[in-house]
Amino acid sequence: MAQVDLNSDLGESFGAYTIGMDERVLEVITSANIACGFHAGDPDIMRKTVALALKNNVAIGAHPGLPDLAGFGRRNIAITPKEAYTMMVYQIGALAAFVKAEGAKMQHVKPHGALYNMAAADEKLAEAVAEAVYRVDGDLILFGLSGSWMIKKAKALGLRVAEEVFADRSYQKDGSLTPRRQPGAMISDEEVSLAQVLGMVKDGTVKTLPGDIIPIRADTVCVHGDGEHALEFSRKIKERLIAEGVAVSAFV
Amino acid sequence: MAQVDLNSDLGESFGAYTIGMDERVLEVITSANIACGFHAGDPDIMRKTVALALKNNVAIGAHPGLPDLAGFGRRNIAITPKEAYTMMVYQIGALAAFVKAEGAKMQHVKPHGALYNMAAADEKLAEAVAEAVYRVDGDLILFGLSGSWMIKKAKALGLRVAEEVFADRSYQKDGSLTPRRQPGAMISDEEVSLAQVLGMVKDGTVKTLPGDIIPIRADTVCVHGDGEHALEFSRKIKERLIAEGVAVSAFV
Amino acid sequence: MAQVDLNSDLGESFGAYTIGMDERVLEVITSANIACGFHAGDPDIMRKTVALALKNNVAIGAHPGLPDLAGFGRRNIAITPKEAYTMMVYQIGALAAFVKAEGAKMQHVKPHGALYNMAAADEKLAEAVAEAVYRVDGDLILFGLSGSWMIKKAKALGLRVAEEVFADRSYQKDGSLTPRRQPGAMISDEEVSLAQVLGMVKDGTVKTLPGDIIPIRADTVCVHGDGEHALEFSRKIKERLIAEGVAVSAFV
Amino acid sequence: MAQVDLNSDLGESFGAYTIGMDERVLEVITSANIACGFHAGDPDIMRKTVALALKNNVAIGAHPGLPDLAGFGRRNIAITPKEAYTMMVYQIGALAAFVKAEGAKMQHVKPHGALYNMAAADEKLAEAVAEAVYRVDGDLILFGLSGSWMIKKAKALGLRVAEEVFADRSYQKDGSLTPRRQPGAMISDEEVSLAQVLGMVKDGTVKTLPGDIIPIRADTVCVHGDGEHALEFSRKIKERLIAEGVAVSAFV
Repeated sequence: MAQVDLNSDLGESFGAYTIGMDERVLEVITSANIACGFHAGDPDIMRKTVALALKNNVAIGAHPGLPDLAGFGRRNIAITPKEAYTMMVYQIGALAAFVKAEGAKMQHVKPHGALYNMAAADEKLAEAVAEAVYRVDGDLILFGLSGSWMIKKAKALGLRVAEEVFADRSYQKDGSLTPRRQPGAMISDEEVSLAQVLGMVKDGTVKTLPGDIIPIRADTVCVHGDGEHALEFSRKIKERLIAEGVAVSAFV
Repeated sequence: MAQVDLNSDLGESFGAYTIGMDERVLEVITSANIACGFHAGDPDIMRKTVALALKNNVAIGAHPGLPDLAGFGRRNIAITPKEAYTMMVYQIGALAAFVKAEGAKMQHVKPHGALYNMAAADEKLAEAVAEAVYRVDGDLILFGLSGSWMIKKAKALGLRVAEEVFADRSYQKDGSLTPRRQPGAMISDEEVSLAQVLGMVKDGTVKTLPGDIIPIRADTVCVHGDGEHALEFSRKIKERLIAEGVAVSAFV
Repeated sequence: MAQVDLNSDLGESFGAYTIGMDERVLEVITSANIACGFHAGDPDIMRKTVALALKNNVAIGAHPGLPDLAGFGRRNIAITPKEAYTMMVYQIGALAAFVKAEGAKMQHVKPHGALYNMAAADEKLAEAVAEAVYRVDGDLILFGLSGSWMIKKAKALGLRVAEEVFADRSYQKDGSLTPRRQPGAMISDEEVSLAQVLGMVKDGTVKTLPGDIIPIRADTVCVHGDGEHALEFSRKIKERLIAEGVAVSAFV
Repeated sequence: MAQVDLNSDLGESFGAYTIGMDERVLEVITSANIACGFHAGDPDIMRKTVALALKNNVAIGAHPGLPDLAGFGRRNIAITPKEAYTMMVYQIGALAAFVKAEGAKMQHVKPHGALYNMAAADEKLAEAVAEAVYRVDGDLILFGLSGSWMIKKAKALGLRVAEEVFADRSYQKDGSLTPRRQPGAMISDEEVSLAQVLGMVKDGTVKTLPGDIIPIRADTVCVHGDGEHALEFSRKIKERLIAEGVAVSAFV
């Protein structure tokens, strides 16, 4: 029986600022990526979000990002692999402490935004990111773009991985995501999105933007909860998966 | 046989900025308090300093501070106990990850500057600080001002403590430090300083600024390495302690 | 004929984070206090908010705060008068540049949150704040708590001032605001609030929480736009003032 | 008679952290680029450095950088032209306020590090940077890499420019600097450096790394004061220029 995890980015509020509808997203997802204070989140938010995830029986992961609150971690910064390693270790450790303080255990790590994209495409950064996870806790699962350098480097270290796929993004022939600035990058038709998810999860294939069918591994699907519409669509993905006989659950 | 620990604040550089002579201080001390990125330090510095301490067989502690790099964590900020708790958990976790990544184990936690002083004097902050340490790792030792609220609250939780004394500061009748802005707060005469340290460590007493002899517990002595003179004096304290038959070592 | 200004804090969003309904508040107020990046706001938000205020013919002021984005500038920080002076100069200059870049001129400066409260009550901080405004541009008007040290020190320098009053806060016998943690600090009854504003603006008096009538100068009233209810009430204050024959306008 | 300006980056300390020997560099240079708090510097340091420059009769410029204190503004960040514009306006305004508070006038603006390099090479960023300077104060002089996009865009706006050359960097055929990671990028031989400076200033030519002689405009030479050796060499450059009949002075 097919099985898949649904993950979403949480704990992205900061101080007096609120982003996201964390309480409601937690009713849908099975894994929560919690921001660690660099691109979003702060210690108070982290504590609250960890407690909230535990209350909802949702698996917890660290969601480390670039040190760029003003840019929400979405702007590339020309960091070295060594800097990637240390900012990963720091943030994983910070979140792990909140999880430990609540008597629980962290499941995974998923880099955020520009750090995720850079490490997906750059062999050296990918290696540094994987090594950070491995050295802090070899039992953690690294979430990374399906088929990317992050996945390859994590596997090479003997780290467990979860290959991540996207419902609302189109794919290129080489399995990479179509860059956002290119036409056709985003999939706006919900039925097309749902079909893409089902195909990736059940058949292990995806139809690329140019039209080819390529193999793709889908261990976890990224969903969003930053608006009513996004939340509603996340719910639909889950329902359809279940209706199609797919088990939706976190990793064990 | 009397035993005492010598601790010093390390890893206080930041990015392109250097403070302290960490490599040389590590030859003198037995416990290193490593800054965690809020008042000083950054992920790269933390990694380097942890590795350096391990190389020197010096025990490692987290040195969390207020989020105030511009003020080096020395300015009081009106934080709530809940905020104290979360900023402690965050920073302890971050440093612990670097220690774990090097295959080692953290010994202690010592709050920095204004956070240390506020938590020493405020019962609620002390409780929050102690609870943060306890919940992240109940095996950690909390370093706090001898006889302060931090020590009392940590003990109440069943946490191990190290009561800290100062060589260059005079004491009040109630065992608190004479505030820096008051005359006589600092002890500039090295022989007076050395005598104070020996008295505290060997006899468990200190002569207060007004002249009374009061009891004081001295598990660890704070020394400095931010200049040639300070480093030299730290060395003298250690030599004198050893010459007087005191074992200078970290905790086990 | 009585005249009064209505001011509100604007431009308090940050990066991906949104706070406030600036476009709608600008339809009500006559002076906008724009955050300068320390407690809220960022360069992009500052540019946008300045342009928006100009479009609405609302006078512009700098709203400098303590360097504490996580605390939204509401936590006291033990800064020196010299630090208060330099953080004021810095932030006033930054906002002034955006106003100048749009070909306009800044009207005023109103410190934010904890900086406002500390400078209202502390003679030395008040002096530093007033001097910062004066030295950057002697034509600026300093907005400060009516009757406070900030007002006194600004006047002593020959600076123009706008004494600020609050609709939803009760007053003490000495003209200070009842601290928020005390019962009766906030006025929740809208009619009582409106009566207080009218009394302050038209008669120059206020009924204190204990019941005395004391004189108070009201050059500008602080109103809020951080929610539908606050915005609606701000509109009511303005309408009532106009209905009562008070001219509502910025300074000239 | 040939004339040239000598500029250096100053005010790069931060809080408790010190970088540079500003007092001594000010005895050598004619224009000071003062950090504005994003990549280095803080409000206290800015105030002090402005006063120090005035005392030494050295012309003052803003030295805005990327918001990256940990990276000292040297890491490229993928900012948009709009973001470049607003972070320039913000920082220029902040420094201008300190200069105004001392009763003086700012001479120039020189972007720092990665912002300087990105704006030199990218037409859109160059345009945004020039427009920021122009809109804040059309009398300011923009310092930029000789022959770069920054210079072209500033001229197109009618802004005065100072084309900057480097003593210790080799040039490519197209007039750009040899990237630091390439062999031959740095010129370590002092006599070669001095000859390069003299050739650029007196003849308006430079011998490129491949060996060609190309025209180059040299209005200002960048010198360093971050070490005894750098300071000594800066002094030599100045002495040699004067000995060769070149007037060393700021702009009027």
